[in-house]
Amino acid sequence: MSLTIKSHFASRTYLSFTTKPSRFTGYNTKIRPNSIYHFNPLRLTYYQPKKMQASVQYSPAPLIKSSKIEPDGGALVDLVVPEGERGAKTIEAESLPKVRLTKIDVEWVHVISEGWANPLKGFMREDEYLQSLHFSSLRLKDGYVVNMSLPIVLAIDDETKERIGSSSHVGLVGPDGDLIAILRSIEIYKHNKEERIARTWGTTAPGLPYVEEVITPAGNWLIGGDLEVLKPIKYNDGLDHYRLSPKQLRKEFDRRNADAVFAFQLRNPVHNGHALLMNDTRRRLLEMGFKNPILLLHPLGGFTKADDVPLDVRMEQHSKVLEDGVLDPETTIVAIFPSPMHYAGPTEVQWHAKARINAGANFYIVGRDPAGMGHPTEKRDLYDPDHGKKVLSMAPGLEKLNILPFRVAAYDIVAKKMAFFDPSRAKDFLFISGTKMRTYARTGENPPDGFMCPGGWEVLVKYYESLQAEEATQQPAAVSS
Amino acid sequence: MSLTIKSHFASRTYLSFTTKPSRFTGYNTKIRPNSIYHFNPLRLTYYQPKKMQASVQYSPAPLIKSSKIEPDGGALVDLVVPEGERGAKTIEAESLPKVRLTKIDVEWVHVISEGWANPLKGFMREDEYLQSLHFSSLRLKDGYVVNMSLPIVLAIDDETKERIGSSSHVGLVGPDGDLIAILRSIEIYKHNKEERIARTWGTTAPGLPYVEEVITPAGNWLIGGDLEVLKPIKYNDGLDHYRLSPKQLRKEFDRRNADAVFAFQLRNPVHNGHALLMNDTRRRLLEMGFKNPILLLHPLGGFTKADDVPLDVRMEQHSKVLEDGVLDPETTIVAIFPSPMHYAGPTEVQWHAKARINAGANFYIVGRDPAGMGHPTEKRDLYDPDHGKKVLSMAPGLEKLNILPFRVAAYDIVAKKMAFFDPSRAKDFLFISGTKMRTYARTGENPPDGFMCPGGWEVLVKYYESLQAEEATQQPAAVSS
Repeated sequence: MSLTIKSHFASRTYLSFTTKPSRFTGYNTKIRPNSIYHFNPLRLTYYQPKKMQASVQYSPAPLIKSSKIEPDGGALVDLVVPEGERGAKTIEAESLPKVRLTKIDVEWVHVISEGWANPLKGFMREDEYLQSLHFSSLRLKDGYVVNMSLPIVLAIDDETKERIGSSSHVGLVGPDGDLIAILRSIEIYKHNKEERIARTWGTTAPGLPYVEEVITPAGNWLIGGDLEVLKPIKYNDGLDHYRLSPKQLRKEFDRRNADAVFAFQLRNPVHNGHALLMNDTRRRLLEMGFKNPILLLHPLGGFTKADDVPLDVRMEQHSKVLEDGVLDPETTIVAIFPSPMHYAGPTEVQWHAKARINAGANFYIVGRDPAGMGHPTEKRDLYDPDHGKKVLSMAPGLEKLNILPFRVAAYDIVAKKMAFFDPSRAKDFLFISGTKMRTYARTGENPPDGFMCPGGWEVLVKYYESLQAEEATQQPAAVSS
Repeated sequence: MSLTIKSHFASRTYLSFTTKPSRFTGYNTKIRPNSIYHFNPLRLTYYQPKKMQASVQYSPAPLIKSSKIEPDGGALVDLVVPEGERGAKTIEAESLPKVRLTKIDVEWVHVISEGWANPLKGFMREDEYLQSLHFSSLRLKDGYVVNMSLPIVLAIDDETKERIGSSSHVGLVGPDGDLIAILRSIEIYKHNKEERIARTWGTTAPGLPYVEEVITPAGNWLIGGDLEVLKPIKYNDGLDHYRLSPKQLRKEFDRRNADAVFAFQLRNPVHNGHALLMNDTRRRLLEMGFKNPILLLHPLGGFTKADDVPLDVRMEQHSKVLEDGVLDPETTIVAIFPSPMHYAGPTEVQWHAKARINAGANFYIVGRDPAGMGHPTEKRDLYDPDHGKKVLSMAPGLEKLNILPFRVAAYDIVAKKMAFFDPSRAKDFLFISGTKMRTYARTGENPPDGFMCPGGWEVLVKYYESLQAEEATQQPAAVSS
């Protein structure tokens, strides 16, 4: 399909970023005249009050493409060994020195093996690690640059390093002792945890969930190499059918004749504010001339912090949102993104966007403070809530992706529904944070009407009830022990 | 001049990085087969034992160019107001809200005004700051990427922000109260010191010299904008004639008919090990077909930590090194690089290299642990000593620069001179660190013969004697107060 931009868009030429740019963002942010943010006409339409549209001028060459977006660095990798070779490879793996993986290491094996981190073929060697830490990107041999903001690495301890000796390959063993993969042509290099943490999170304060769970307990060495995964990673948790690989997603987009795919990353239940902006995005894409924009509702399925809502509950909640008709099942695909969560704000949101390029999404929705959280030791957000979308818009290797920052949605107490926040009548809006939402659900109090569809809300209430029941049964045990 | 590569180089095609690459680096580092380091034939010749050369094959298209290297982003900026406009601009500056600069802020004004940070036209606005922190580079409007690894920013406190109010421009006032510049079309944004420090240094440990001197005492806001400097920055310390701008240096290289310029950044006295590698680099460049390679001996002249040798002493020492004939004055230009020092290792070395591109150097020598120091709170180097040259070799925006990592030089106790370290007879080599050198000079003990030319050494001894005399006179005062 060729892109048809409505005539009032096409007749304009780019100029508008130079005029009162703060009006476009919905926040009190100045964007300077010669801004080098990716130009994105859809973003302008998002942020622009009606009365300004007449004076706005658009680029003759917008970023938006209707063609399928190519995976980073060429064809998608598929690192799972063909079934015919599995036996021989397993025998070989058994003969190699072993590295024991954690549950989260296995999630990364899964991520790498399906091409979410394309063109990465395994855990990073030092040159990739350093580029990731310093440049949030990798330069490929052909000079092409792909985004790569998170170090995707495997740590080993001194004893394992000793055991590997001069072997060129190692076998990777899952937490239950099952052989999972071979890591080939390995390179072992120092794991400077302090530097990795500082450069990834922009802080070394204690209490970062991924750091405490993964990095602090890890060994002082990193081992890079090329992965050969013995069989597809499965979790057997009743949710594997949601774990579509980038290849499967691309096939599904084709099957549905999608001419635009817009991805929505989340790790929280879907409320009507989310739904509003997803539906609004679809409307805008249709207005721009796309015939069949498909929403990829793409909850993160790997490691999350203890007080986030668990994956199975979220998946049930998302199902209800579709059942209740808040999102249209015809134009929505719900699938699990298998990555663990870093909570690394502007650094991590690049990873979230980059992985969706590989899955075939050419539009990426980004909200306030993506992948952010409270500072672990200070009373403030860890990241400036606007930095995520700014950094994402400027990130190397993401130029081909259309970034869609959205205005913040809040509960409009006059209209009694979730609506885009209107600063001119700020007092009419109620902000319901994740923490607040969880408090409602935990205390059994109902959120305002129209905050979330009843079916979805019920799932959350039941989850928090079960949690309290569990806590209640655990407390006496704790007292008696 | 067209580049003539000697025939035994030209007849080879690139292959060699795939064979025993660890031999090239002189350290026990593995470079993986499909390394994406900038390919650099000179680097190969540096690191390669004679017996291996026969099997080495070279790229048909080496990076090395004999043509002058262009400044980053086009023509060099010159932000000093023409003399004819100085009066009017000064009157305007007087009418604007004022920002008081520290001594180090003024050094940055100097750096920016002459185009060392080309194409930066002033202190960074937030979009530049974020790109610098996250990507060590800036993408220009034309899509071209330039390296920019250090945030070059100006901090202000709450009171100054309040005073500026809604003014679009401010006057910059030096530490002595003299008007220095106008900063135009300003943007004020948050100064998250923790994040800036973590992402720049890869640590937040207390005791980083630039952090303690500059960042910790600074305000909680950054102010970006375009600089108009009222007159050239001068220090009146008897060394201003050494402070050649990038424009002046380029002119001098032309005057000398340089067909290659190799820059050597330093903040320490020059010993014979340094001299060895500078002379060796020249020899190699001649071997490669360059007719007139010129050395830019380029000591850093801005802020350095308290225990580094001060600039005036270093300049005197460098003079002696040329007088004593250790370096050839005919093919050497000594000038001061006006930047302050961050001691930020792999992040800072990119800045050091990038600034020299702007000055017209197309070869950059990089040593072990460039811009590194000991960890401020742990007993180890702050950075992996190999990371500097690795990161430099992969840094975005530095592709056009020929990076020349050098083998480490040490004192050969058999030959009684500084020589490239030969690991096969490690016990014959004595490593004389900066700390060790300072201890020699302070205690009046002579270093081994051939470590440094006598004239240069005498300068250091005199400096440390004067320091001790000063300490001696200060101590009673301290006791009595």
